Amino acid sequence: MRLEGHLRKEIDMHGTMMDYSLVLPEFLERAGKLFPKIEIISRKPDRTLVRSSYGALYERAKRLASALTKLGVQPGDRVASMMWNHAGHLEVFFGAPCSGAILHTLNLRLHPQEIANIANHAQDRFLIIDDVLLPVYEQFAKDVKFEKVIVVPYGYETVPRNYANYEEVLATGSSEFCYPKIAETDGATMCFTSGTTGFSKGVVYTHRSVVLHSMAEAMVDTFAVSHQDVLLPLAPMFHANAWGVPYTAVMTGAKMVLMGPNVEPSAILDLMISEKVTAANAVPTVWISVLEELEKNPGRWHFDRPVRIVSGGSAPPLELMRKMDRFGLRILHLWGLTETSPLATTGHLKSRMQDWSEERKYLVRAKQGWPVPLIELRIMRPEGEAPWDGETVGEVEVRGPWVAGSYYREPDQAEKWSKDGWFRTGDMGTIDPEGILKIVDRSKDLVKSGGEWISSVDLENALMGHPAIREACVVGVPHPRWQERPLALLVLKQGANASKQEIREFLAKDFAGWQMPDEFVFVETIPKTSVGKFKKTTLREQYASWKWRE
Amino acid sequence: MRLEGHLRKEIDMHGTMMDYSLVLPEFLERAGKLFPKIEIISRKPDRTLVRSSYGALYERAKRLASALTKLGVQPGDRVASMMWNHAGHLEVFFGAPCSGAILHTLNLRLHPQEIANIANHAQDRFLIIDDVLLPVYEQFAKDVKFEKVIVVPYGYETVPRNYANYEEVLATGSSEFCYPKIAETDGATMCFTSGTTGFSKGVVYTHRSVVLHSMAEAMVDTFAVSHQDVLLPLAPMFHANAWGVPYTAVMTGAKMVLMGPNVEPSAILDLMISEKVTAANAVPTVWISVLEELEKNPGRWHFDRPVRIVSGGSAPPLELMRKMDRFGLRILHLWGLTETSPLATTGHLKSRMQDWSEERKYLVRAKQGWPVPLIELRIMRPEGEAPWDGETVGEVEVRGPWVAGSYYREPDQAEKWSKDGWFRTGDMGTIDPEGILKIVDRSKDLVKSGGEWISSVDLENALMGHPAIREACVVGVPHPRWQERPLALLVLKQGANASKQEIREFLAKDFAGWQMPDEFVFVETIPKTSVGKFKKTTLREQYASWKWRE
Repeated sequence: MRLEGHLRKEIDMHGTMMDYSLVLPEFLERAGKLFPKIEIISRKPDRTLVRSSYGALYERAKRLASALTKLGVQPGDRVASMMWNHAGHLEVFFGAPCSGAILHTLNLRLHPQEIANIANHAQDRFLIIDDVLLPVYEQFAKDVKFEKVIVVPYGYETVPRNYANYEEVLATGSSEFCYPKIAETDGATMCFTSGTTGFSKGVVYTHRSVVLHSMAEAMVDTFAVSHQDVLLPLAPMFHANAWGVPYTAVMTGAKMVLMGPNVEPSAILDLMISEKVTAANAVPTVWISVLEELEKNPGRWHFDRPVRIVSGGSAPPLELMRKMDRFGLRILHLWGLTETSPLATTGHLKSRMQDWSEERKYLVRAKQGWPVPLIELRIMRPEGEAPWDGETVGEVEVRGPWVAGSYYREPDQAEKWSKDGWFRTGDMGTIDPEGILKIVDRSKDLVKSGGEWISSVDLENALMGHPAIREACVVGVPHPRWQERPLALLVLKQGANASKQEIREFLAKDFAGWQMPDEFVFVETIPKTSVGKFKKTTLREQYASWKWRE
Repeated sequence: MRLEGHLRKEIDMHGTMMDYSLVLPEFLERAGKLFPKIEIISRKPDRTLVRSSYGALYERAKRLASALTKLGVQPGDRVASMMWNHAGHLEVFFGAPCSGAILHTLNLRLHPQEIANIANHAQDRFLIIDDVLLPVYEQFAKDVKFEKVIVVPYGYETVPRNYANYEEVLATGSSEFCYPKIAETDGATMCFTSGTTGFSKGVVYTHRSVVLHSMAEAMVDTFAVSHQDVLLPLAPMFHANAWGVPYTAVMTGAKMVLMGPNVEPSAILDLMISEKVTAANAVPTVWISVLEELEKNPGRWHFDRPVRIVSGGSAPPLELMRKMDRFGLRILHLWGLTETSPLATTGHLKSRMQDWSEERKYLVRAKQGWPVPLIELRIMRPEGEAPWDGETVGEVEVRGPWVAGSYYREPDQAEKWSKDGWFRTGDMGTIDPEGILKIVDRSKDLVKSGGEWISSVDLENALMGHPAIREACVVGVPHPRWQERPLALLVLKQGANASKQEIREFLAKDFAGWQMPDEFVFVETIPKTSVGKFKKTTLREQYASWKWRE
């Protein structure tokens, strides 16, 4: 009787659902069948526009998968891309993973030697590269050993003879390609962290994680990507797959606009108007430039309907949100990391906040927001999990089906995961009773002053609210007495002026004396990482021997 | 060398993502943490409203899971519910699956003997039942052997002594319950088909399929369920989990209104206004009654913002869509089956259709629509797959991660799946070049007349466009010469009048002579199934010996 009961359960526990894998060929087939005429617009290096379609993507990505297979690509092999945002890169986004290979998007903005190190570490077998980027490749060519370098005629008509021509490679493939058997936990794409702190580490996204992440981005309460959208992914496709937006676009059949290497603010605005863009994503520094352009040219661009501006990578200054709103460009703040695919939280209002004052709403929208479905957050302190009180600061830990569980071949990095399997983000933050995350700082960027912590992010946000300041970056600089003290680097707006005293008084409204920067340094530019974030490691080195006035 | 290459791939093919299962405890935890104050409103049998919250759901569902475990429920055991739509049923929706059991929602509208057969077939160990439904249970109690019958004090204060009181059972559990290890392919809920044709068959949804289906329903291009919504699921929770809406609501933290047994059209409208409902789902017959109520009481209900009306189960008549639109109630047509969880297609417009005339848009919106992400469709004919030409009729086959791959313990039903694993829906339809599905008829409901097929659905839709007709149902009735001929059963609107001749002339504008019903029969009501569809099997039997005039 007992055994019978046991047997019964063995049989019945499983559901009767189909065994159906979450893999990228499903998205490609869907786009080819349902959205063949939807446009993909690419801006060439010479600034002309080329119009392609999902029908062409379908045909060419399958051809590429077929051609790669003929070249001997085996399941799990790494195929590298070094390309700008354009329809060709999108073909590789599907062609490589649908052949069973893992697409490794190289960050072309890194130092050539670092690109070589990363390609070698990842054991990339093939490289697909834009012709206009060959000069970068040639700087590190001697240090890498790709079996074949396939050059995409993107900026020029012809391809140098010593390389394979992408179009000729494509011609060897067939669009009748039969996908290999792919398990949903197989690697699909690979990306290295942008390394604001220390060396780059690799993350391998799986077919399953990309599919689930795309589903999450199509939800109303996140990116709300829809078939009715015209998307302008300004984040580079080598930076966490342009935040996954191209995959979500293909799943939903949204029209896409890809800008290539030239992302001048005026061109962004022109394209937003001419192509009726409904949503765009980029780091705040891009939006700061766009806002400047708007303010410099009153009346030149007019948006009939609000455009969703997805901003991530670092917190958007409050003042930026307020001013962009007036132009109909509505910022949605997203938080995530390369290790989280990246979508982890979005700064939407909770339903009960809809009637709040605009000012109170901004304060919520500027925070990192609440986790999207299937993403879990917690704040950890040495003594254990912090309460969700909006005050207790600790390290933000995250868990979910599109969060990295390890780095690619970096066994020394195991301490980045808690013993119970959560990813330690290195961001310090709080969670309030509504579940809303606020990042106080990167743990390495907090200024440690006399046993107290000062948030560089809060100071930067406040400084960027000053009418004369374009960019502000605060770093902790060694101090003989206080261990570290905050130093603020400021870039003024063109033609604007402000004295240190004025700025000090402006800040004093919101900060205690000990939280205030001890020095303000006016600079022409602030160095940025390959993805547009302030490069604080460099700045800390540069100001390491700063002499504080007593 | 070759072996080394092989080994390398074994290691590297998998991605570096976390092993994170798609299971329902994740939704429950999310709602408890992020949405504790969001309301769940239940309408009692005496028509009073009770306000509960996701905080209470979290606490009570965990208590239930704990209590069930203490009662000896083992992973995979079936726990049956026989309940109306209310917060208590929602507790069981989570409490049972989160204990590792499979929730079996019994269809309380079936014949008591059929309920008993289904419960026995599913080997349900426990029954959780609303007090007001005990009279139904007592009709089949002698034929079933539940280990315990747990009665929810929903309509009355007290529970008869010979049953366990749900509140007392809950009190034995702890909200500190620790979830058992659940695999995402484990069964979560179980539902039997409504059986418009033949006997009921069981489908066991998995944790994975429910999670993925919920993610799909929160996408902009499908249901667009959002945290900002106030949802009114009118489809019964025992009918494919009210189309999955309660699970999606908990995932997104949407406010929910649950109406219980009394779903009078005036009460639906009152609640929609008083609770600011933004979306509701039900079969077309419900919306026909709602429209009648609106037309009978001009000016009584006014909607400031359009309400999304999700209609499924059968095609909404065009006239219904047009008229509902005028009241701000915008019908979205959904197609699916119990076997597809049920979301398979939605009748949204494609982006290029946005500028079409309203009339042309209605014709698209009345079709079944295009498949949601991860759902694949095809039309099969004896000679193979039909082209997507919008003309070639064949059987609709479907595939996807929330589509049944078999029935529960029905090995004889294997022919319902194609050899390559697609589910044969029994619906006959076409797919057009846009990928839009149009169901012509259930294959059993097509009228086979002299070698030609006549769609009963098309005739019904046209008839329901006549101003005097409230409901129309067309069935094929045996005919000595033509094999079958269509016979139309008509229910006139209150106080309305129309002659057969008038109706014949009205139809003749759109149908050929041979497609027209040979007879029109005026009736008081048309028999319906437990989920509100026309019961054509019964009608065919009833009219089997109909004498056609020569």
